[in-house]
Amino acid sequence: MNIKAPRGTADVLPQDAQKWQFVENKIKNICDQFHYKEIRTPLFEHTEVFQRGVGDSTDIVQKEMYTFEDRGGRSLTLRPEGTASVARAFVQNKMYGEPSQPIKLFYFMQMFRYERPQQGRMRQLNQFGVEVLGSADPAVDAEVIDLAMTVYQELGLSSLKLVINSLGDAESREDYRNALITHFTPHREELCSDCQNRLDQNPLRVLDCKTDRNHPAMGTAPSILDYLNDESREYFDKVKEYLTLMGISYEVDPNLVRGLDYYNHTAFEIMSEAEGFGAITTLAGGGRYNGLVNQLGGPDTPGIGFGMGIERLLMALDAENQQLPIDETIDCYLIAVGEEVEKEAVRLVHELRKNGIQVDKDYQGRKMKAQFKAADRYQAKMVLILGEDELKKQVINLKDMETGEQIEVSIQSVVDTVAGKLQGGREK
Amino acid sequence: MNIKAPRGTADVLPQDAQKWQFVENKIKNICDQFHYKEIRTPLFEHTEVFQRGVGDSTDIVQKEMYTFEDRGGRSLTLRPEGTASVARAFVQNKMYGEPSQPIKLFYFMQMFRYERPQQGRMRQLNQFGVEVLGSADPAVDAEVIDLAMTVYQELGLSSLKLVINSLGDAESREDYRNALITHFTPHREELCSDCQNRLDQNPLRVLDCKTDRNHPAMGTAPSILDYLNDESREYFDKVKEYLTLMGISYEVDPNLVRGLDYYNHTAFEIMSEAEGFGAITTLAGGGRYNGLVNQLGGPDTPGIGFGMGIERLLMALDAENQQLPIDETIDCYLIAVGEEVEKEAVRLVHELRKNGIQVDKDYQGRKMKAQFKAADRYQAKMVLILGEDELKKQVINLKDMETGEQIEVSIQSVVDTVAGKLQGGREK
Repeated sequence: MNIKAPRGTADVLPQDAQKWQFVENKIKNICDQFHYKEIRTPLFEHTEVFQRGVGDSTDIVQKEMYTFEDRGGRSLTLRPEGTASVARAFVQNKMYGEPSQPIKLFYFMQMFRYERPQQGRMRQLNQFGVEVLGSADPAVDAEVIDLAMTVYQELGLSSLKLVINSLGDAESREDYRNALITHFTPHREELCSDCQNRLDQNPLRVLDCKTDRNHPAMGTAPSILDYLNDESREYFDKVKEYLTLMGISYEVDPNLVRGLDYYNHTAFEIMSEAEGFGAITTLAGGGRYNGLVNQLGGPDTPGIGFGMGIERLLMALDAENQQLPIDETIDCYLIAVGEEVEKEAVRLVHELRKNGIQVDKDYQGRKMKAQFKAADRYQAKMVLILGEDELKKQVINLKDMETGEQIEVSIQSVVDTVAGKLQGGREK
Repeated sequence: MNIKAPRGTADVLPQDAQKWQFVENKIKNICDQFHYKEIRTPLFEHTEVFQRGVGDSTDIVQKEMYTFEDRGGRSLTLRPEGTASVARAFVQNKMYGEPSQPIKLFYFMQMFRYERPQQGRMRQLNQFGVEVLGSADPAVDAEVIDLAMTVYQELGLSSLKLVINSLGDAESREDYRNALITHFTPHREELCSDCQNRLDQNPLRVLDCKTDRNHPAMGTAPSILDYLNDESREYFDKVKEYLTLMGISYEVDPNLVRGLDYYNHTAFEIMSEAEGFGAITTLAGGGRYNGLVNQLGGPDTPGIGFGMGIERLLMALDAENQQLPIDETIDCYLIAVGEEVEKEAVRLVHELRKNGIQVDKDYQGRKMKAQFKAADRYQAKMVLILGEDELKKQVINLKDMETGEQIEVSIQSVVDTVAGKLQGGREK
């Protein structure tokens, strides 16, 4: 018997988990600077949340969801994305009634999409994301984009491209929708069956089709930017102006529509331009969704957010040869041989840890030489050596592995000595 | 329409998320001191992992799992506990072949159990846990217990009870099993139907039954401790001796068998003894499982670990009135009114953040007075005030909210001034 993790999922093993921790801590610090607070929602929701919140016509809802019935007959779905869940939580917890608006949230979530696994596309994927609910200020759009760019830059990425677009308000979208129907209807039969459905349900998403991307009608399709009404154009201009003030470069791509139904006004994606990054270059995507909260039963509330894949972020760091500063050393390794010595070693390790010192010892009954090897493998900064003679004299040998210097200290004072040495090392 | 989070699940809202973060960081630091490394496994596994790894006869597998088929017809199960997943990852990733043994792992996982929700029992629950694979040294059993106790103590809990037991090795368990069958068979018909099955499949678990706990045969049941062979007794003695050396008090409870099938030798639970903590007092539970890795297709590998509920930990902190030191302040709030001023405000907020300063501003078009109120609500340490006059003179007013002192600084030097003041505040 040989059981593997389900297809499209992967374990994060210790050596990689340290990278994840580093990235997450860095992101949390940036969220703190931007004054975003964490929210956590359940792994699954009533399926209706995604049908309404992501949109019935989307690939996600139609093809990719992990939907099942629980033992009580409820239809539940593992979340395929974060925004609908957060909006549901916003409504349920009446966050619209809080005095401090907008509500600025961030999350780390596992998402689940049943797609064909390939590099950079897993069935269980991890996203960092933010959602700002309760403000229709274009400065928030710029802030959200700024936050995403700051994350990448502070982690060391430089080959990035920011693409933005505006989908306009409801009026602009409706005008544009009609223009797209007029444009594509003569080519209807040449389009893929998905696109034929999209043309009825949500024609904007035809522009997003991977199958028909090279159809000639794509290149001549009308541009949303020609259909923005004054208010929408003004809104978009402000977003662009704020980005420029922040020194953030961008390209406008009128074909950027994003896969989800609930976007309006600003839509954006951040891509990696690193060589050899792979076929899927999108690192993060987001946009404004002023209708979503209302659609989920809450009061009319503007919102904007993005989702950022952690796996792809790590891939981009690799592609740009950016090493994260991971510390793989250990402060102290205690070497002991012999049964009586062992007892004192166990006690001493406990005492060192109680005093905040990182320490490990052998648990394999290894001989002294093999214990020294283990200390090397763990990159111990200091080794404590306790033998029977030392125990009798109530002393212990402390070897500084960097300098090679070895001193004998009393067992009673070893905690202070080790702590002092580490303190000294950290101040260097 | 009003969609709520599924029954038995809950959102963690920002004010609580900060507590979760604090607890998780504290735990990660302790794991670091103990030299445990993080592992992350997928949310779901092939159902077989839990049938084999948790045990077909357990309540978890029989009644409580979220099991479903994916779109490819695989039977998947949301993990109900962590050990089987970690052991599967250990086997799949051939961690038994790594030079550094034992493998000491920790995890934070959401778990899913379809039970009747009540206080302290959710259908989606969060656990911190550790697993040590590859060592049969009783010092590891003590270390694992030490780690759990250290977490509780460093977070401020004091009303704790540690209960330990030994289930012995395979031989001892077999002898004890037979003794239990002999003891309970005359009362078979008086026991609940679950226990009648348990008597055939896994008689130890009869002792764990909540329905039959007051049946007279329970009190007179033989004790596992009378059936331990020499090796098992010696092992248990060493664990107890190490705990004593560490100054950790414990009670031995021969009825502690834990709900899972794979335990042998050491089993333990940590309970809260805080007044008003509620009906379910167990905070953490764990034990040794030397057969598990083999059962999942790996080489014979000893293992031990525990799982600790985060929700219950937070409840215990509440019950003991332990406040976590959560910082709810913000370094800096920028107040600006007027369109031209707004642009400079957006730029300045961006610049302050780029320099590591935590800052927020208004995005609701509020008047100056309302912005001051917002700054108060956010507990800003400093407020920056930018008006049209100031903008013309390229200066900004900086108000220290603690002292009330207000100074005028040039916009060019505001980053340095704010950073300097924060530095000073932190050193105090």
